[in-house]
Amino acid sequence: MPEPIVFVVDVAPADASPPAGGWESTVRRAASGEPIVRGTDLAATRGDGVFETLGVLDGCPQAVDAHFWRLANSAELLELPAPNLEQWRVAMRIAGSALPTDRQGGIKLVLSRGVEGEERSTGWLIATASDDDFANRTEGWKVVTLDRGYRHDLSERAPWLLPGAKTLSYAVNMATLREAARRGADNAVYLSSDGYVMEAPQSSVLLRRGDTLVTPKTDIGILPGTTQLSVFALASQWGLATEDRLVQASDLLDSDGVWLLSSVKLATPITEVDGKPIAVDRELTERLNAALLARRE
Amino acid sequence: MPEPIVFVVDVAPADASPPAGGWESTVRRAASGEPIVRGTDLAATRGDGVFETLGVLDGCPQAVDAHFWRLANSAELLELPAPNLEQWRVAMRIAGSALPTDRQGGIKLVLSRGVEGEERSTGWLIATASDDDFANRTEGWKVVTLDRGYRHDLSERAPWLLPGAKTLSYAVNMATLREAARRGADNAVYLSSDGYVMEAPQSSVLLRRGDTLVTPKTDIGILPGTTQLSVFALASQWGLATEDRLVQASDLLDSDGVWLLSSVKLATPITEVDGKPIAVDRELTERLNAALLARRE
Repeated sequence: MPEPIVFVVDVAPADASPPAGGWESTVRRAASGEPIVRGTDLAATRGDGVFETLGVLDGCPQAVDAHFWRLANSAELLELPAPNLEQWRVAMRIAGSALPTDRQGGIKLVLSRGVEGEERSTGWLIATASDDDFANRTEGWKVVTLDRGYRHDLSERAPWLLPGAKTLSYAVNMATLREAARRGADNAVYLSSDGYVMEAPQSSVLLRRGDTLVTPKTDIGILPGTTQLSVFALASQWGLATEDRLVQASDLLDSDGVWLLSSVKLATPITEVDGKPIAVDRELTERLNAALLARRE
Repeated sequence: MPEPIVFVVDVAPADASPPAGGWESTVRRAASGEPIVRGTDLAATRGDGVFETLGVLDGCPQAVDAHFWRLANSAELLELPAPNLEQWRVAMRIAGSALPTDRQGGIKLVLSRGVEGEERSTGWLIATASDDDFANRTEGWKVVTLDRGYRHDLSERAPWLLPGAKTLSYAVNMATLREAARRGADNAVYLSSDGYVMEAPQSSVLLRRGDTLVTPKTDIGILPGTTQLSVFALASQWGLATEDRLVQASDLLDSDGVWLLSSVKLATPITEVDGKPIAVDRELTERLNAALLARRE
């Protein structure tokens, strides 16, 4: 993996105006290997913060508005101070322009509650040029379904469990990917404890049923997918219907195509679910990835 | 809060021998406010690591063996390299001796999966002298019960959700404490989605029923409590029976005493559950805290 480039952001309140040197003066490129986070930062001791990962094409971060909307929403769910989106927009541009334009990349935005007791957010960006060949987009992935432990109506019943927030507390997501690998799969799809399709540890789920693209509705405690939003916008242009609804686990097996969607990997067709081959729509896969790669938002 | 003292540990594999300078040479006290964690460390971007918080009395960390057993267990559940407990023991002693002996304190041990792509654990200690007056031990706390979202049989069904591991992914625990405060309570007790008492966001639950001390059994996806273990050892000396079992939510209301137990706060008597006053055993509370404070393990 090429070495990531880290940019430290001197996080400003949402209502702050840019300083004399502009927002640019609040963004500093860290030296290679430089520690930038204190040992008492709640990001590092409690996973207490939020993040976003944006795809970068030609040095241009993609779907910035959708990611910033979700960032602000996650921050609100965690009762973090609202992010200053103008500042982050400038920081994002600086990080994007540090990446090579001859390949795809990604930028992770980390916004922490900050150092314990200081009540001041900390944040940084991690810009990474990809050396992935993105074989996932043509070869697809085998997935296993794994229980997320929560019922699908969790959001109403227990908002303190932070459903719908993209927090830094991702140890479970990482453990789920290890479990999938242990079962010989490339990725996992979470099911609610009462059997509904939720999301994958790092991506959204998309299905095609005839002329309709379907995704699980987000009030079942999952993240709104930024790439899924882009795909639905494309679908409307292409005359396909779109639907957010409850999706049964069995729907994965009898759809006309299933994909995992994420910002850097883009649309990955699923070829097997729990060891059973499923229908793969190679034409739509190609069309989706071509359109997602043609964005310069 | 007095400023915490941070010690960076150059984490060694479990089977490593101490270097020429001894394990002492692998522990470095960070300067005040010094960043010690890289922006790509998985502790800070994914909450992907484990931790322990030990109480410190007279500069002496308490229940070290129990905490180290749990640390090693958490690491195993996360498939982290096993910690070198001899190294951590030396580091813990160094951190403890940096704390003033005229008051209580705590040490947090953080063990991260390390910087993404480097496959090398990182770790540090945070030693804090307490300025708490520990009124909790005499005045007690009001608690609310809050749904943890998981059924009590999660451990068997979904180990990839990391039940029983003390991970750095604690955003939900922190959000639960905010929800408790919003409801006018001092703390929360998690219930499983099927109604069993689990634990609190940062402590274990203890009940007295006649001459028996009871705690929820840990195979329902909760942490083994280190202070609860100390309390059960004391109970045996005092001729009280002890029991690990399934505990119903209604048991909280009709016990002869309920406590939250943790390493620094020690035994906090619960005075109200969901707005209903419950029996408070002041004598046993005093006896427990006196005995826990008299330890010099």
